[in-house]
Amino acid sequence: MKQVLKIIPLGGVGEIGKNMTLLEWGDDIVVIDCGIIFPDEDMPGIDVVIPDMTYLEQNRDKLRGFCITHGHEDHIGALPYALHKFRAPVYGTRFTIALVEHKLNENRIKDADLHCVKPGDTVQLGKFKVEFIKTGHSIAGAVALAVTTPIGVVLHTGDFKIDLTPIDGEPIDINRFAHYGTRGVLALLSDSTNVERAGYTQSEKDLGVTFERCFDAAPGRVIVASFASNVYRIQQVADVAIAHDRVVCFQGRSMEQVAEVAQKLGYLHIPQEKIVRVEQLSKIKDEQVCVITTGSQGEPMSGLFRMAGGSHRLNIGKGDTVIISASAIPGNERGVSRVINALFEKGADVIYDHTADVHVSGHACHEELRLMLQICKPKFFIPVHGEYRHLKMHAALAQEMGVRADRVFVTELGSVIELTGRKGLAGTPVQAGSFMVDGLTNIEDVVIRDRRTLAEDGLVVAVITVDSETGRQIAPMQLISRGFIYMRDAEDLIAEAIKQVQPEVARFEGADKSDYGNIKNGVKTKLKSYFYAKTKRRPMILPIVNEI
Amino acid sequence: MKQVLKIIPLGGVGEIGKNMTLLEWGDDIVVIDCGIIFPDEDMPGIDVVIPDMTYLEQNRDKLRGFCITHGHEDHIGALPYALHKFRAPVYGTRFTIALVEHKLNENRIKDADLHCVKPGDTVQLGKFKVEFIKTGHSIAGAVALAVTTPIGVVLHTGDFKIDLTPIDGEPIDINRFAHYGTRGVLALLSDSTNVERAGYTQSEKDLGVTFERCFDAAPGRVIVASFASNVYRIQQVADVAIAHDRVVCFQGRSMEQVAEVAQKLGYLHIPQEKIVRVEQLSKIKDEQVCVITTGSQGEPMSGLFRMAGGSHRLNIGKGDTVIISASAIPGNERGVSRVINALFEKGADVIYDHTADVHVSGHACHEELRLMLQICKPKFFIPVHGEYRHLKMHAALAQEMGVRADRVFVTELGSVIELTGRKGLAGTPVQAGSFMVDGLTNIEDVVIRDRRTLAEDGLVVAVITVDSETGRQIAPMQLISRGFIYMRDAEDLIAEAIKQVQPEVARFEGADKSDYGNIKNGVKTKLKSYFYAKTKRRPMILPIVNEI
Repeated sequence: MKQVLKIIPLGGVGEIGKNMTLLEWGDDIVVIDCGIIFPDEDMPGIDVVIPDMTYLEQNRDKLRGFCITHGHEDHIGALPYALHKFRAPVYGTRFTIALVEHKLNENRIKDADLHCVKPGDTVQLGKFKVEFIKTGHSIAGAVALAVTTPIGVVLHTGDFKIDLTPIDGEPIDINRFAHYGTRGVLALLSDSTNVERAGYTQSEKDLGVTFERCFDAAPGRVIVASFASNVYRIQQVADVAIAHDRVVCFQGRSMEQVAEVAQKLGYLHIPQEKIVRVEQLSKIKDEQVCVITTGSQGEPMSGLFRMAGGSHRLNIGKGDTVIISASAIPGNERGVSRVINALFEKGADVIYDHTADVHVSGHACHEELRLMLQICKPKFFIPVHGEYRHLKMHAALAQEMGVRADRVFVTELGSVIELTGRKGLAGTPVQAGSFMVDGLTNIEDVVIRDRRTLAEDGLVVAVITVDSETGRQIAPMQLISRGFIYMRDAEDLIAEAIKQVQPEVARFEGADKSDYGNIKNGVKTKLKSYFYAKTKRRPMILPIVNEI
Repeated sequence: MKQVLKIIPLGGVGEIGKNMTLLEWGDDIVVIDCGIIFPDEDMPGIDVVIPDMTYLEQNRDKLRGFCITHGHEDHIGALPYALHKFRAPVYGTRFTIALVEHKLNENRIKDADLHCVKPGDTVQLGKFKVEFIKTGHSIAGAVALAVTTPIGVVLHTGDFKIDLTPIDGEPIDINRFAHYGTRGVLALLSDSTNVERAGYTQSEKDLGVTFERCFDAAPGRVIVASFASNVYRIQQVADVAIAHDRVVCFQGRSMEQVAEVAQKLGYLHIPQEKIVRVEQLSKIKDEQVCVITTGSQGEPMSGLFRMAGGSHRLNIGKGDTVIISASAIPGNERGVSRVINALFEKGADVIYDHTADVHVSGHACHEELRLMLQICKPKFFIPVHGEYRHLKMHAALAQEMGVRADRVFVTELGSVIELTGRKGLAGTPVQAGSFMVDGLTNIEDVVIRDRRTLAEDGLVVAVITVDSETGRQIAPMQLISRGFIYMRDAEDLIAEAIKQVQPEVARFEGADKSDYGNIKNGVKTKLKSYFYAKTKRRPMILPIVNEI
């Protein structure tokens, strides 16, 4: 049988989040990214849905390594789970690896085989030679991958934008893409996030004007909320702050941690004497203070949220200027709106995306995507990092740019694209999907995840009453839903669900207490799949065992 | 004691929704609007939180009438509850009154004293003379109110935009505002919704270009989703459809109802022979069909949702063009996104606000608000229809336009602004707030409301186990939260809540089963206020009584 190159997305297509793509040739597999799902790219740690990695388990002997494009959660978040199962080297730039390391420590994964690379470096993984190419994104250390395979080069952009005036002074290495494009790219996998947007993404530097103006006008403290991982944003704010004779104080757990790592690795350049701890602020005049904090998404318990609510040492009030340097991720609008109102009520001046240019996206828009296609001139094109509509629109864009329609693949999770040098075919799909994992380390994330599920599909509470001694069910099960279906109209559905789950409930009888958790999970899974089959929705299932 | 004019907002300030403002002079009260709360103005029937009307009850003898600015739910939705309590005439334009009538019928309120007025009409209500002035908004029949009081004219804009090329050909009656402005306006109450947006709101007519282009390019059926009450939008779509030799078919309960009423009253002008029922469509060629449907918010069970899911006679597929002529209301983004992806998967062409100009707002932006201030030159200014930040920004705008700072009032629910001809003071506030009412007629609304609450503040399930005979509590109460607080960190809070609510739970013992509902409500209220006091959040409380 003739060998083919297989490209297998296990995550990141038909969804924005949990990016994971496999390249397979003969006995070798390279994995590109390994993330958790996540509605937008900028905010770490929001969910614990990981890709179903069954296919990789079945082919674990072939695994040569993980190549990571950058350190956002939707690209690295599932690594602790993967490295728990698989022993394989992980490659990424220094900042990426630093964030991976931190994540692995939190999850007590030791002895991982981590390798720092620089843009321009190549690593040989089985038959694959992988080159890391500098790009630009809303995090430091982002790279694209050029994977030379026995039948040609596969280019994976990672998340990117074409920012010609980036804060770190090193724009995306267009010439390296051109190098490959000129010699011939077999397949391009490209970021589809912003395909709905015309034109170009604004440069990070454009925000400088806004920051300058805000700092000029600020009579007292300036508090800037942003994403911890966006060190370019942080650098820019710090630069303006210092130019205005202010010291910088980091607030919020992830902000403090990331800032420290980024300083150490040289991704942030803030003179150490300009960084102060929050305890020192009382001795410094308000007009000499700039606080950089988490909470740009209105997350409860975040730095900004507590400052707005008065439960933080830095009680925000009159004279303070607050800049929310982010956009609300879908689902967070109300939280953000609430924080803004609270800050106004405290008397602060609040500057946010509705009223000023305080945020730019990290993803390429139409013209940048066209440019990437034009430079790489791929034979085959696979849009990635997008919901179905994004992939579809990006596919249309590729055809417009000259890729033949039969060489453009809109994939689903588990799709297998089989390429020979000349032909591309969709092969038999492999097992793929979502896998829920417990065990978060960050409080607010759990709550936000729940809220999002609740918002999306509502909830079903299942009350199971059992004898505390024997585990025998001693009262009929109750199912109550909210935000899912209107109960009065769904009596049959509910009755049938109770019937379907009965075998699971029966397992409590005689079971050891230590198994209750497992049995509860069984109830959950059963109800979940029943409701999904009937309604195509996935309400949160909350089984409550009432021991009498 | 010298008489003063009192202006009392019982709703619509510090929030977008449940608008209700009282004007009081001596023994006379006029109420302006009477709505339910609601995150945006365009979508009816989404919630059943009404203003606390205690103050009006205490002064029921003074009530002279309700004057309604337009027929959106956040302006009329609480009328069934108000008219259940108070006997008073209701004034509004024909379309407004038609929607009020429909709403009262649904709630079985009979013999209401409804009066249709035309722009330019005046009615005398006690000492108040109220003139209705034509404005423009995203619904037909919108008016402002000029209320002549013994000490001057109070102008209430209602929801408005300055659309100089409206679909009905009758722009806002600027000259009437100028008439009052020239003679002197005592106080202006003006719509703050879009105060964050610079410039002017686009004209409804601007969408015509997009619609023309979409219809030109459509090879098969065109399906347009929009808000039922926006008859201008519907008229515009129907006009383009008919010009393209298509018939029009209305789908979705509210769309069909509103279209029928609007046709009857002359707010919609579609030749009857061009309107077809859905059963007739099978005999008509696809390229001669335009369907106008509900579901622009991705609401489950709405017309569009079912079409996208294949559970509707009009199964959408390849060749169909779908235009979603609306923006996602905050909180609905994911639902809308899901429907768009589903439509793409079906193979339809989908045109929506991210990709084309298919929606304009119904509210005035910066320049229009400035113009209104400039024309009316009010002595006192009270921004209304906005969250706190909107009111605050609108207040700043008024000062910029020359209103003295001490004559601008940013109010809260229950604020009492007391005006003499020369002076304005904030008096003692009256009871005000939110009041939850059950009894919706529309299924999806209940579910959406729940989901929104869940999304905003999460949920607490309280499982109370009682003896089915005696009602005595026979197991410790369980409190489980999701999306509210992280349980492991909140053991004290939960323990204390259980303690606090114990007296309520004890009431089950010996109670009649018919009282269980009331006692459950008591538990709910107690927990709600406890959690609010401790966390400033209002999770949904779901008490479950488990009778063993």
